[in-house]
Amino acid sequence: MQTYELRPIGWVRSPLTDRGAAPKQGDEGAPPASIVIRPELAEAMADLTVGATVIVLTWLHEGDRSVLSVHPRDDMTRPRTGVFSTRSQDRPNPVGLHVVTITGIDGTTLDVRDLEAIDGTPVIDVKPVLGPER
Amino acid sequence: MQTYELRPIGWVRSPLTDRGAAPKQGDEGAPPASIVIRPELAEAMADLTVGATVIVLTWLHEGDRSVLSVHPRDDMTRPRTGVFSTRSQDRPNPVGLHVVTITGIDGTTLDVRDLEAIDGTPVIDVKPVLGPER
Repeated sequence: MQTYELRPIGWVRSPLTDRGAAPKQGDEGAPPASIVIRPELAEAMADLTVGATVIVLTWLHEGDRSVLSVHPRDDMTRPRTGVFSTRSQDRPNPVGLHVVTITGIDGTTLDVRDLEAIDGTPVIDVKPVLGPER
Repeated sequence: MQTYELRPIGWVRSPLTDRGAAPKQGDEGAPPASIVIRPELAEAMADLTVGATVIVLTWLHEGDRSVLSVHPRDDMTRPRTGVFSTRSQDRPNPVGLHVVTITGIDGTTLDVRDLEAIDGTPVIDVKPVLGPER
């Protein structure tokens, strides 16, 4: 099977350092965080603006790629569910999808709100939110 | 720099075979398509249901990873824009994000609506749409 190589475009900087302490979703209390983009990719981020809401894709490097079903939100009273129906970070390709708001831009560093990933998480893409005209 | 290996969970089957003919967004006229999931991942898709709207992530294998800015939608009258502000498939990690509706399930094949990727595109993840309770 052909595989593909992801190269991080940058990394998360966050006071969150422990997977267990991270909220399950960004709107459940994630602290302010930053995304430090590789300087050589400055051109790709040149049109991002403060106040914009964007989609950030991460590589959840602590995810267990062998897991195919989980109890959602680690709640053992909930039935085991196939990971493609959950947001578990344990999944065959542990890509995280985050909707965040840009609160500041300094060089190639983006300050963001509502990003629940832990410090050091690789970032693989930034995209506009879905819309008809892009 | 540490890199990461994406392993396809499946592949797109679609009458679209040419990048130039593919609509820019799925709601602009994509024909019915299927996602053929690897049989050994059946457990991960066991809770997907017909009628559900899901997020599909693909690896846009024809994308040019060296491109950092583009004229959006190949319209030369529009200013060159950093790719992180566009949906261009030409970007450092050419991950495609698609919101599709499942119209049928047969074994490990999902029939879907609104998927604009070309035939053979690797699929890397399926996720529920954003919501508070997952």
